[in-house]
Amino acid sequence: MSEIIYLTRIETFSAAHRLHSVHYSDDENVLIYGKCNNKYGHGHNYVLHVTISGKLDYRSGMLMNITDLKSLIKTEIIDELDHKHLDMDVEYFRNGQIVSTTENLCIYIWKKLEKALNTFNNDKNQNQSIKLYEIKIHETDKNTVTYRGE
Amino acid sequence: MSEIIYLTRIETFSAAHRLHSVHYSDDENVLIYGKCNNKYGHGHNYVLHVTISGKLDYRSGMLMNITDLKSLIKTEIIDELDHKHLDMDVEYFRNGQIVSTTENLCIYIWKKLEKALNTFNNDKNQNQSIKLYEIKIHETDKNTVTYRGE
Amino acid sequence: MSEIIYLTRIETFSAAHRLHSVHYSDDENVLIYGKCNNKYGHGHNYVLHVTISGKLDYRSGMLMNITDLKSLIKTEIIDELDHKHLDMDVEYFRNGQIVSTTENLCIYIWKKLEKALNTFNNDKNQNQSIKLYEIKIHETDKNTVTYRGE
Amino acid sequence: MSEIIYLTRIETFSAAHRLHSVHYSDDENVLIYGKCNNKYGHGHNYVLHVTISGKLDYRSGMLMNITDLKSLIKTEIIDELDHKHLDMDVEYFRNGQIVSTTENLCIYIWKKLEKALNTFNNDKNQNQSIKLYEIKIHETDKNTVTYRGE
Amino acid sequence: MSEIIYLTRIETFSAAHRLHSVHYSDDENVLIYGKCNNKYGHGHNYVLHVTISGKLDYRSGMLMNITDLKSLIKTEIIDELDHKHLDMDVEYFRNGQIVSTTENLCIYIWKKLEKALNTFNNDKNQNQSIKLYEIKIHETDKNTVTYRGE
Amino acid sequence: MSEIIYLTRIETFSAAHRLHSVHYSDDENVLIYGKCNNKYGHGHNYVLHVTISGKLDYRSGMLMNITDLKSLIKTEIIDELDHKHLDMDVEYFRNGQIVSTTENLCIYIWKKLEKALNTFNNDKNQNQSIKLYEIKIHETDKNTVTYRGE
Repeated sequence: MSEIIYLTRIETFSAAHRLHSVHYSDDENVLIYGKCNNKYGHGHNYVLHVTISGKLDYRSGMLMNITDLKSLIKTEIIDELDHKHLDMDVEYFRNGQIVSTTENLCIYIWKKLEKALNTFNNDKNQNQSIKLYEIKIHETDKNTVTYRGE
Repeated sequence: MSEIIYLTRIETFSAAHRLHSVHYSDDENVLIYGKCNNKYGHGHNYVLHVTISGKLDYRSGMLMNITDLKSLIKTEIIDELDHKHLDMDVEYFRNGQIVSTTENLCIYIWKKLEKALNTFNNDKNQNQSIKLYEIKIHETDKNTVTYRGE
Repeated sequence: MSEIIYLTRIETFSAAHRLHSVHYSDDENVLIYGKCNNKYGHGHNYVLHVTISGKLDYRSGMLMNITDLKSLIKTEIIDELDHKHLDMDVEYFRNGQIVSTTENLCIYIWKKLEKALNTFNNDKNQNQSIKLYEIKIHETDKNTVTYRGE
Repeated sequence: MSEIIYLTRIETFSAAHRLHSVHYSDDENVLIYGKCNNKYGHGHNYVLHVTISGKLDYRSGMLMNITDLKSLIKTEIIDELDHKHLDMDVEYFRNGQIVSTTENLCIYIWKKLEKALNTFNNDKNQNQSIKLYEIKIHETDKNTVTYRGE
Repeated sequence: MSEIIYLTRIETFSAAHRLHSVHYSDDENVLIYGKCNNKYGHGHNYVLHVTISGKLDYRSGMLMNITDLKSLIKTEIIDELDHKHLDMDVEYFRNGQIVSTTENLCIYIWKKLEKALNTFNNDKNQNQSIKLYEIKIHETDKNTVTYRGE
Repeated sequence: MSEIIYLTRIETFSAAHRLHSVHYSDDENVLIYGKCNNKYGHGHNYVLHVTISGKLDYRSGMLMNITDLKSLIKTEIIDELDHKHLDMDVEYFRNGQIVSTTENLCIYIWKKLEKALNTFNNDKNQNQSIKLYEIKIHETDKNTVTYRGE
């Protein structure tokens, strides 16, 4: 028997963004996004919680080496998003089709990390795979979004 | 396809209360609730986490406008509970049949917000409804109660 | 030479209170204290920071044994204030001459702890005395009061 | 009908440990655990979240008296782990077969508390039993492990 | 006798900015500010601690009505900085002579609040004036700047 | 005129230690340090606040480049203390003359950083020097020690 473990790594990144949807008129954008629609943008210290799950490796006593997880989050996410303007520096949000809400940010991070974890699992040629379980982002101390790949 | 998103809004309210059940004798109340049964009550800064879930609206990139959610929590919960004595000022707890434990407080808040969200869904005439997923209250930094409508 | 050290112990207590001053009319009380004047009171998880200062004892490497400081705060403050109604259960605030604001609460705690520390210093017959340096209370996550005996 | 409630109690313990597996050579241990393999160990303030679940008792308005839960966690966990060296003072980890990772620490705490809760349920001769739902440990502010008995 | 009280109000604002000094060449700007010089800016949830000091009003038991302090911070600071781009939306930083570092942000906020407090003191025609004691800003969880008007 | 700025950088390190003084007998050690005297040690996540002060550089808008301060703390403190046993791995505490209390840890860190800052000031050949203002360590969430070089 092997126990199912959930491992969460928490990282922070500081980024600017502006909420503005090409699906709305300028007036509708102001109406819907309010101060988040401010022309020159605003910013946050985003607190990112990445949770993976899978069976415990009885020899190491670990689900996954936290050093590997840190490295993966840094390469895939922090290096691209930290100290950037989401709408100007990140291709996924640049064309304006996808609004840089925390909801869409969660989904974007999920997609990148899920792919990276698959590559990691294949490289390690492990019998059981480590799965991405949850992406949670605290945009502020009062607003949090969670995505579980559903 | 539409992704399922969980959105959490965190609010705080400061209230007094006393744990005292009409189902017990005075001696039993002291025995069961200890210092929480103090005649004149005590109080807390309650930290309330309201989590809703539902499908992402691809146009706005949001599950629900956080401004609407804030407003709803303020009207339904904060205005009634903040800077109040739960057992004296809130009708639900006033007759003494329902003890103002954090457990019952979660259930009370669930009931009010579920109803308010239903009204919100109907008013918006949306195809998919936003559901209340979880009410979590930190009574102190060490005690937390969660209710998910089960 | 002996270094000057500042040692802070943090404790929490949960209490109810109502802001109401005998120096004002009822209408003035409502005007000045607003929702804090609610007839049946409200409450908080008060976070208390007690800071003492003095010369390091080179043998123990400590300013004061934290166990002694904890014990002193418990006996003098926590046992009297925790799970109580400040205006009903604490004599200092009961006669209504002194309003149970966080400002006055700081001063009250200062007075009690300063006296207790003097007794502690005398009992230990120490050459140098440990002094009370600062009482800080977080009433909520957004409001903090500090008193330094000035 | 009785509502399902989740009750979480948070406690902290400070312990030393060293990550070193008998299943690896010394070189492999260095490679896998890095600085966590430091010969003389290191330490943490572990923040433990114990969550139980079950039906609300309508008379008391509680799932379980928090005083009982505190007492149970203290007796079973804190007294054994706080201010200890996990690998030297705790039998479960002493023989070196089980590495004192946070993953294994979660599982160990689950086993002890599940057993203690069963005894508690039997002693109370309750119709419905309180179940252990989740053990979550924050090893640092950035690393968290969760175990749900799966 | 009147006790000296320190009262701190904590508020948060989310803003974008870019560190770029007109006193340096573009290459020097990259060298000095690194990723903070990113062309399109980045952002933070700034946590602002405003501390005022003065003598306690014995009648109200307060240094200053926290409602007045909140209102003053909102009008002077939050309304101008929250959900804005500091370098584009705030005149003080717009001409590029003053870099929008947290250090300069502290000084800017000090200047505005000191002036507003003076007006407040005059309006109240109080015998003793409330003074601005300290502006502290947490730019991230790891970087904090304090200015005390020295 | 140049404003005086206080800049704080917060870093964390995880270490094991045991409180045991050569100035006391074994029995006295148990009596004085209690569970902190546990033979095999225990450990903490120490949260270190390093505050420097000095005049603002008007060109950069900074007191000191935070990157330099980070680097200095890493080289001098984190690399030596993180994931170590203070009494076994750190020479200052190894001979047992100086007990590894948080008080002494503050003084040790002060000495190392003050020296390093002097070197930094000389290397930069600056007209005004950056001074170490305060070392603060949170040993746990409830115990904090501060040293200001007095």
